[in-house]
Amino acid sequence: MSVLTIGSAAYDSLDTPYGARDRSLGGSGVYASFAASFFTQSRLVAVVGKDWNSAYSELLSSHNVDLEGLEVRSDGDTMFWSGRYDNDVNKRETLVFQANVMTDYKPIVPDSYRDSSHVLLGNCAPDSCLALLDSIASPKLVVADTMDFYINNMRDELCALLRRIDGLILNDSEAALLTGVESSPRDAARKILEMGPRFVVVKRGEYGAFWMSGSELFLVPSYPTDNVLDPTGAGDSFAGAMMGVLAEAGELSAESIKKALLYATVVASLNIEGFSLERFQYVRREDVDERVAKFREMLVC
Amino acid sequence: MSVLTIGSAAYDSLDTPYGARDRSLGGSGVYASFAASFFTQSRLVAVVGKDWNSAYSELLSSHNVDLEGLEVRSDGDTMFWSGRYDNDVNKRETLVFQANVMTDYKPIVPDSYRDSSHVLLGNCAPDSCLALLDSIASPKLVVADTMDFYINNMRDELCALLRRIDGLILNDSEAALLTGVESSPRDAARKILEMGPRFVVVKRGEYGAFWMSGSELFLVPSYPTDNVLDPTGAGDSFAGAMMGVLAEAGELSAESIKKALLYATVVASLNIEGFSLERFQYVRREDVDERVAKFREMLVC
Repeated sequence: MSVLTIGSAAYDSLDTPYGARDRSLGGSGVYASFAASFFTQSRLVAVVGKDWNSAYSELLSSHNVDLEGLEVRSDGDTMFWSGRYDNDVNKRETLVFQANVMTDYKPIVPDSYRDSSHVLLGNCAPDSCLALLDSIASPKLVVADTMDFYINNMRDELCALLRRIDGLILNDSEAALLTGVESSPRDAARKILEMGPRFVVVKRGEYGAFWMSGSELFLVPSYPTDNVLDPTGAGDSFAGAMMGVLAEAGELSAESIKKALLYATVVASLNIEGFSLERFQYVRREDVDERVAKFREMLVC
Repeated sequence: MSVLTIGSAAYDSLDTPYGARDRSLGGSGVYASFAASFFTQSRLVAVVGKDWNSAYSELLSSHNVDLEGLEVRSDGDTMFWSGRYDNDVNKRETLVFQANVMTDYKPIVPDSYRDSSHVLLGNCAPDSCLALLDSIASPKLVVADTMDFYINNMRDELCALLRRIDGLILNDSEAALLTGVESSPRDAARKILEMGPRFVVVKRGEYGAFWMSGSELFLVPSYPTDNVLDPTGAGDSFAGAMMGVLAEAGELSAESIKKALLYATVVASLNIEGFSLERFQYVRREDVDERVAKFREMLVC
């Protein structure tokens, strides 16, 4: 089993109540592929520019993220995002966004990735996602993690994509934006199921997440960490870990879905306890398992 | 084992997006004692007035709520509350509040209640709660469910009470009000533990609840009902059911606490699916157990 992630690799400049970072490693593809690599073979399709720091490739490689699909272009710069979090870490403000080499990116899937069993479509234009899917021989599970930008600007292409995927993962505000349903995230999720996917995962920040299919509903609270330093990549690492566990399990049973939600929650919590990947890069599978055991003790069931 | 509840018995007039009721049965003591009676012997200490409808006493008695502690006064009317819920059922507006016979109420504990093992101090002025506690021979567990009114107007008495109880149960806005800690409900809960109680239970409406002691943290999501008609009494029925299960268990182990939170969540969800006690009165223990089983299937652990 293997998880192919397509998403961004980026430089992030961050300003939070707990500190700041300039041009640190970030990007949805980076966070997600790193998170998946705790559990299974992880492959990244992304593009960076001439300013890319090769030490970051080494960091990912050393955590068993396969980078054959990482295109390094010499005619432009890596995507750049700058943002600020205030005391309510659920809210962030984008200060600068430069797509740079992502602007006209046409993802190329290396031959060695064509047998990928699990595909996570992260930050990726819906039409590029569709083209990429055609390159995968016979994926067992395809999940998209959409963003408000594509909901607002590429709705038709996104709707076409929704009919090709197994699952959609998004946060509650995106679910409301996509469906126009504001009454409750569960109502919005039900509407999304009518748009194509077999299941939808709604992330609710500090309030946890739920998985809904036609017949199932699973609930997970967020892990109660008191050391949130930098929430960047929380959703991406959640999605990547979820896919990693599902690939590791090799099936979509209630048991493996619950396990995936549990691990996804814990991996996201470990990520946000440090800036960028500063802490995350040193987290080992044993650390994840240990926190999962601690989390299980807190969970009512 | 037995749960003694002190709280209000009231007439509630309700206006919600789903309908309205005039002078229906309500009150924190009514909801909580009814909820506790699913699990253990339940005793109510409360006062009503000359306008009390004896059919409501029969309703409670038929569900095994012992009413020897229900004082029926002929010189005044039953407490009356009128409120409105808008589409966000977490928010309510009080239109009319008449304390009536509750104004100068001095609770009297019947001799037959003095051996109560579990005491739930619901809507009750802190000094009356303290006096009542002196009447109980040797309670195993004393929990108070406080209200913003007492936090705002009787802070000294409330602080004295906090030093006499085992646990405090309150919602997140009350926890912030009591402690002045707005950063997070967990931070507020930690501060409350410094004020006396051994544990605190913070209710967060649709986001669930948590139990915190010096060494333990337990999390429970809310039950995902889509049929909320009348949220009145949700917190009271949660508290009553929690106490009922803890009394039934007879101990305060992690296992019994988790079970109590699970059942409390489910009982509260059954209550709010009908106006007043219209639905709640017909709920049987089997219905509760059935929904608990359904809830467990949804819970990740």
